[in-house]
Amino acid sequence: MIKLTILSDEAHEIAEALQQKIADSDALRGTNRESLLTIDQVTCHPDQVDTDNVTVLLSDPDLTAVIIDKCSALKWCQSTWAGNAPLLNAGRTDYMLTGLKGIFGKLMREYVFAYLLQHARNLNAFEKNQRAATPKWEASPRVPLNGQTLGVVGLGNIGQALIPVANAFGMKVVGLTRSGNDVKGAERVYTPSEIEAFSGACDHIVNLMPDTPTTQNLLSYEFFNALKPYSIFINAGRGSAVDDEALISGLDKGTLAHAVLDVFRHEPLPPTHRFWHHPNITITAHTAAESQPSDVASVFLENAERYLARLPLKYQFDFAKGY
Amino acid sequence: MIKLTILSDEAHEIAEALQQKIADSDALRGTNRESLLTIDQVTCHPDQVDTDNVTVLLSDPDLTAVIIDKCSALKWCQSTWAGNAPLLNAGRTDYMLTGLKGIFGKLMREYVFAYLLQHARNLNAFEKNQRAATPKWEASPRVPLNGQTLGVVGLGNIGQALIPVANAFGMKVVGLTRSGNDVKGAERVYTPSEIEAFSGACDHIVNLMPDTPTTQNLLSYEFFNALKPYSIFINAGRGSAVDDEALISGLDKGTLAHAVLDVFRHEPLPPTHRFWHHPNITITAHTAAESQPSDVASVFLENAERYLARLPLKYQFDFAKGY
Repeated sequence: MIKLTILSDEAHEIAEALQQKIADSDALRGTNRESLLTIDQVTCHPDQVDTDNVTVLLSDPDLTAVIIDKCSALKWCQSTWAGNAPLLNAGRTDYMLTGLKGIFGKLMREYVFAYLLQHARNLNAFEKNQRAATPKWEASPRVPLNGQTLGVVGLGNIGQALIPVANAFGMKVVGLTRSGNDVKGAERVYTPSEIEAFSGACDHIVNLMPDTPTTQNLLSYEFFNALKPYSIFINAGRGSAVDDEALISGLDKGTLAHAVLDVFRHEPLPPTHRFWHHPNITITAHTAAESQPSDVASVFLENAERYLARLPLKYQFDFAKGY
Repeated sequence: MIKLTILSDEAHEIAEALQQKIADSDALRGTNRESLLTIDQVTCHPDQVDTDNVTVLLSDPDLTAVIIDKCSALKWCQSTWAGNAPLLNAGRTDYMLTGLKGIFGKLMREYVFAYLLQHARNLNAFEKNQRAATPKWEASPRVPLNGQTLGVVGLGNIGQALIPVANAFGMKVVGLTRSGNDVKGAERVYTPSEIEAFSGACDHIVNLMPDTPTTQNLLSYEFFNALKPYSIFINAGRGSAVDDEALISGLDKGTLAHAVLDVFRHEPLPPTHRFWHHPNITITAHTAAESQPSDVASVFLENAERYLARLPLKYQFDFAKGY
């Protein structure tokens, strides 16, 4: 039996998503069909939590850190974040802390292919024809993804989630990683020293590399110059990986067709930044793999079923190791 | 050795696509690296063809029908169309006629997922935020395809090509066909008499049904009323399958969110038709699975390699059967 406290900026949205899924779950019913999971407290404000009655938390780590010392009965906290620095640094370690994982690849693959297909199928040209004063019936040019090669810079868990989708569309995948080690499903994996060859082998490229000192400005002139006039470049890793001047120069010279940018050196991207106004740049608000309340609810419920069945929880943090 | 004549409205585009692919093909080189395939004639006009020198044709069936009786040396005609009524009805049967096949599923899956993802990822809202007088950094709402169910009306060869892509995105597929027979990869296949149950089981629906007397207005009020407020309906089958009034009524009442229409009762869709101007309808110009010159070149080359190797050609028509 779980009595759940939800403490999050999106507590009410998460509670709503959770209610629907609880109703659908047989694993959360007891022998008399009674629910083994009830939502006890739902709030956005740490000071509104009745801390004496907190045993299971579904919560934002920053808000949880404010009250965690008072939650003496706490057994398990499912975080709504992937990283959990506020709780890993809070000192308390006598409970189970689980992170939000296993969902980012699923979100990222939809983001990446939404934009690749928008260009492959020339959605904007058809839209423009439809919205013309006199609508135009016209076959705007398209270039199929089928047969093309997708390059992924940073081929970790999230990047690898792109491979089955790319293959289903008839695309090959090549990667670029620090090690250059083989990755299952990738035709070839290049190292940073082979970046020009990598770039030249790709039709479109997605950067998913995290922010590390060695990746700063990795995507520079030689990278953008080796792309193709129809190439789409998607950055959903970190803004610092891109040499901004090199990108703008490549777009202006036509060494690539378009850039879709989700991450920037400074976020939110300032309204005056020229990226916003470039005709060949699409901006999204660091939302490529941003989880939704329903994702949080799904990860929590999967773990709640394991908790009730006394199975090890998924995505559990090790306080000693700090991750 | 093939000396090729190209006769098509897009003869020059096809020839260009072909040149590139010929250069890349080892199978088309002889023992001394000489090319076993040369492009001999390229024209859009039947009366410009030197008919005495036609042995292998890559051509539009309507243009070919004009000259076929004069092409006494003709051995093989690869058509640029899927259907070949003009040549099947032309009387001559002493040559091999092959159709353009095996490519439509690859094109259709890109069309369908381009529009499903455009809505799932709310591309228009991000675009609008970017193009505002002061650009807006905002996380517009999204509803992932992952976990949803895609319904396909008419689950033949082309429809089945959607299944691996849907699965790669974490979607289930259900179908509706005349027979209701099981289809590999589909969770369930409904019959037309179960259309309301089918519609209620789906998050989004694609119609690919061909035009037959029994499919006229099959997608009517009961179909559109059983959809969901966020459902996307895509029609890339035939316009006559949709009850236009029922569709507009569903969109206006919100029993579905949006319709993407590629086919219509009258094509081109007249500029004054209200479909053009409805805010929840997207129009494309019967281009969902329209082949490109590079598709034509690929299908021809695959068969040309088989022709040179004296293997049976793919997609060959049987004049006796008429298909």
